[in-house]
Amino acid sequence: MRIGLDAMGGDRGTAEVVAGALAAAEKLNGDDTVVLVGDREQIEAALGKANGQQDHIEVVHAPDAIPMDAAPVETLRSMPDSSIAVMAKLQKQGELDAGISAGNTGACVAAAQMHLRRLQGVHRPGIAVLCPTFAGPVMICDVGANVQCRPQHLHQYGVMSSLYLETLYDVDKPRVGLLSIGEEESKGNELTKQAGQLMRADTYLNFIGNVESRDFLKGGMDVMVCDGFVGNVVLKLVEGVSEALLPGVLKMVAKAMPDRAADVMQVASDIKSKFDYNSYGGTPLLGVAGIWIICHGVTGSRGFMNAVLGAKGFRAHAVNQRIVEHLGSS
Amino acid sequence: MRIGLDAMGGDRGTAEVVAGALAAAEKLNGDDTVVLVGDREQIEAALGKANGQQDHIEVVHAPDAIPMDAAPVETLRSMPDSSIAVMAKLQKQGELDAGISAGNTGACVAAAQMHLRRLQGVHRPGIAVLCPTFAGPVMICDVGANVQCRPQHLHQYGVMSSLYLETLYDVDKPRVGLLSIGEEESKGNELTKQAGQLMRADTYLNFIGNVESRDFLKGGMDVMVCDGFVGNVVLKLVEGVSEALLPGVLKMVAKAMPDRAADVMQVASDIKSKFDYNSYGGTPLLGVAGIWIICHGVTGSRGFMNAVLGAKGFRAHAVNQRIVEHLGSS
Repeated sequence: MRIGLDAMGGDRGTAEVVAGALAAAEKLNGDDTVVLVGDREQIEAALGKANGQQDHIEVVHAPDAIPMDAAPVETLRSMPDSSIAVMAKLQKQGELDAGISAGNTGACVAAAQMHLRRLQGVHRPGIAVLCPTFAGPVMICDVGANVQCRPQHLHQYGVMSSLYLETLYDVDKPRVGLLSIGEEESKGNELTKQAGQLMRADTYLNFIGNVESRDFLKGGMDVMVCDGFVGNVVLKLVEGVSEALLPGVLKMVAKAMPDRAADVMQVASDIKSKFDYNSYGGTPLLGVAGIWIICHGVTGSRGFMNAVLGAKGFRAHAVNQRIVEHLGSS
Repeated sequence: MRIGLDAMGGDRGTAEVVAGALAAAEKLNGDDTVVLVGDREQIEAALGKANGQQDHIEVVHAPDAIPMDAAPVETLRSMPDSSIAVMAKLQKQGELDAGISAGNTGACVAAAQMHLRRLQGVHRPGIAVLCPTFAGPVMICDVGANVQCRPQHLHQYGVMSSLYLETLYDVDKPRVGLLSIGEEESKGNELTKQAGQLMRADTYLNFIGNVESRDFLKGGMDVMVCDGFVGNVVLKLVEGVSEALLPGVLKMVAKAMPDRAADVMQVASDIKSKFDYNSYGGTPLLGVAGIWIICHGVTGSRGFMNAVLGAKGFRAHAVNQRIVEHLGSS
């Protein structure tokens, strides 16, 4: 399997991506290869410095990097030699089996939509994030690929996320909730009411009905389905909480016990590692005819390594074939 | 001024509402009256027990209570003698100048829409909640009155919230953000892109552009405008965080310092009071031709007292007249 890894993506620079590729390479066998896509000179400099085992690693030159804030579609068109565009085209041509990027998420989604087809029966791809909570991770889909959802999109996000968790994470009959503003069927907007009907009628889904945003932090569900606009708001709010609220709480704790500042720092660091994105293998764009994994901008080498291994798992467990079996006749 | 207070609403029962009315009555002068609307027998029993000053207090009998989870419109129609329906009708007839309820929020919105007109020029009323954060309170509008927003609704929520904060909270030129999924104008869905254009064109508004959900926890804005579905999701997620995440953090702190459990409990209680709903005077339903204030289900006597004083402030500062001045020709 040939797994593309965008060496120009992410906040920490090429050396961090290359370190992740090297860590992954140590765990690969046979023909499996991490293909670093980006500026050859930068990549080779990082590979030289790292001085690690370089079996299972190749480089494809793609000189341009799409800026994190650039408008996705326009920039992709104007930068055909960007790492994200090249990675998508190579996957289309069958020269890569997967693409991984911590770069501009919108550009990743647009590149995948532009160059890879959708899986048979899938209306819109969705980004499915495993969001860590104190009660365990919950998969939220969609978190921003599709901000104008129709009811059947939400239904399909439930099915695809469910299949993904079943196959890659061995979750038995994942409990799927539909994010709304009240548990009763009558609560919500037109989108969620119609999506709820579709989901209730699907005998494959273990549909637990409407859930509220506060619920997913408490456990009780494995998947929370929502429109990409709403999912993005939820995800960033959870992030905002760890950035703004947790330090606020810990500051109050430290103030109450000035003699125990070191312990408080330790708790802060424990919490940070508990909610560390790098423990997860990135975030799949579900529904494209290929494998595309989106990493958080802050991803470190361990995160990139896990994303490479996640891409391998995605193919080994034939997630896409299972999606087509379920949705192919939609 | 005659201020209606729903004695059947809220999780803590009639006695708690009555205690709030008595506390408010001590601060009222002249003809100002709190009119307790609900089951006369229950109210008078609570008034008798409380044995407080009963000037400035009246009782209107309304025997029925709308259950918290009941479908709003249907239940209002089938329970014309419910406290919420009676309070709305009395306000329509000019026998009350304001209505306050900690009951079924949907029923409050429906009753206000059914019996009170909208203010001239206002397309849809919106619920504007002051959400406490470590960086100070932020007004979020709408949080659930209107789950199918059009762009002009969002624009008007910005204007009405801004006027409310200016007049009642002396906030100079409130900074108004539009909740979206990226700061650039191009980010968002069709609704937010079009609302952004309307808001940018409004010279009254101090519009700071798109904001992300994580931002409002950090300060930097006074108002965050959003669709009622999204606002409800945000509000409940912030609540969920205090219910699920804060205890999780404090548990980790307590585990790291088992000898200081009492201090940790104290911090937990400090945080709880910092984010106490009862410090605010309820949540106005902005845009109706009247005064309607919605309280959280858990509101205690101090919260009801503050809501009564908030209703007085709402009228004293002529919030509705100011809204009509700004939006009357819309």
